[in-house]
Amino acid sequence: MTKPLLQIALDSLSIEKAIQDVRQVANFVDIIEVGTILACSEGMKAISIIRSLYPDHIIVCDFKTTDAGGVLAKMAFEAGADWLTVSAAAHPATKLACQAVAEEFNMLNPHLKNKKEIQIELYGNWTLQDAESWISSGIQQAIYHRSRDAELAGKSWQNEDLLLMKNLSDLGIEVSITGGIVPQDIHLFKDIKNTKAFIAGRALTGENGIATAQHISSEIEKYW
Amino acid sequence: MTKPLLQIALDSLSIEKAIQDVRQVANFVDIIEVGTILACSEGMKAISIIRSLYPDHIIVCDFKTTDAGGVLAKMAFEAGADWLTVSAAAHPATKLACQAVAEEFNMLNPHLKNKKEIQIELYGNWTLQDAESWISSGIQQAIYHRSRDAELAGKSWQNEDLLLMKNLSDLGIEVSITGGIVPQDIHLFKDIKNTKAFIAGRALTGENGIATAQHISSEIEKYW
Repeated sequence: MTKPLLQIALDSLSIEKAIQDVRQVANFVDIIEVGTILACSEGMKAISIIRSLYPDHIIVCDFKTTDAGGVLAKMAFEAGADWLTVSAAAHPATKLACQAVAEEFNMLNPHLKNKKEIQIELYGNWTLQDAESWISSGIQQAIYHRSRDAELAGKSWQNEDLLLMKNLSDLGIEVSITGGIVPQDIHLFKDIKNTKAFIAGRALTGENGIATAQHISSEIEKYW
Repeated sequence: MTKPLLQIALDSLSIEKAIQDVRQVANFVDIIEVGTILACSEGMKAISIIRSLYPDHIIVCDFKTTDAGGVLAKMAFEAGADWLTVSAAAHPATKLACQAVAEEFNMLNPHLKNKKEIQIELYGNWTLQDAESWISSGIQQAIYHRSRDAELAGKSWQNEDLLLMKNLSDLGIEVSITGGIVPQDIHLFKDIKNTKAFIAGRALTGENGIATAQHISSEIEKYW
């Protein structure tokens, strides 16, 4: 068990705005995510530019890959992403294709600072049995979140969310948690031992971004 | 019931290659799809360039939207897409957000040649009851396909596929069909009355692209 990391999600429409957003807090986060909106807007250029600016951070490409896994994984990893999100709803063959590309990269580059990894993004109807099959495929990470749209519709963290995350963690899956994360919520997740990262977007890109990052980090220190 | 349309899916890594691929068959297809691979690689520029080259075609943005529906839909429609794919696994709020953006566009622009529409892309575990809820939300289209990775793994069209598509069609959903479509397969789908389009990629971009497009069109004439 290691301490959860802090991840900033960049979800602006342009790379220029994303750079502006990440610049102030880069030294206070471990992981920089090129979010779906940014990736869809700017394409792979968004990954390669963030990689060139931040050679030492873990970089996530949040494609929520749903098909064509082999091609998208190769493209994302070659552009500089370390981790790639894959939708839980993707066909098992798609997940396997992404994982195979990651493993090939890791085998060919044994001295990578950060291994290429796949993160299953939990959308749609999935079961703990599915999660066991991901583990069997060599996949170690999953992302649990309130849907952005559900969040905008005012839905908060439920006990049901927390229990599902705990179950995943207890299976051995490293869980990243996202969806309007604020420092005041961190304690809610203290029983999820395998918390890999907390992912925040707007909370870290605003005026008080650095203070918020430090506040989340100090909450993490308290509970893990 | 109208005759199914023919859609080319552009899934190259670069817009230059995509333009090369579409140019020869553009006059033989009704719909041009900026596929997931192309959209993820080039970003929104891929949509706006294809739109400027083909002002009269229906253009599909194949994001397989899984979250942040409102933002992605707005971005895709503003760049020139007519239809946007949304993953069946997306939260209902995400689907509603996309549909709301489409309806707002249509209301503000009553003279659009092609209405903005959402297409539910059938990934993950979904039911006919889900499909009924999409219809209630005002969504009229769905896309049924063999997963690209499943197809690469050698899985063909099954009776189960055909029955599910027929059920969707009988509910009133317009179904587009994709996954290694070739002229010889068109007859398989003749009982799916509400077939909206056949989507082909590699079959239309190769050396025999025009002949294949014409062959698919003549098969459509035979069966619808």
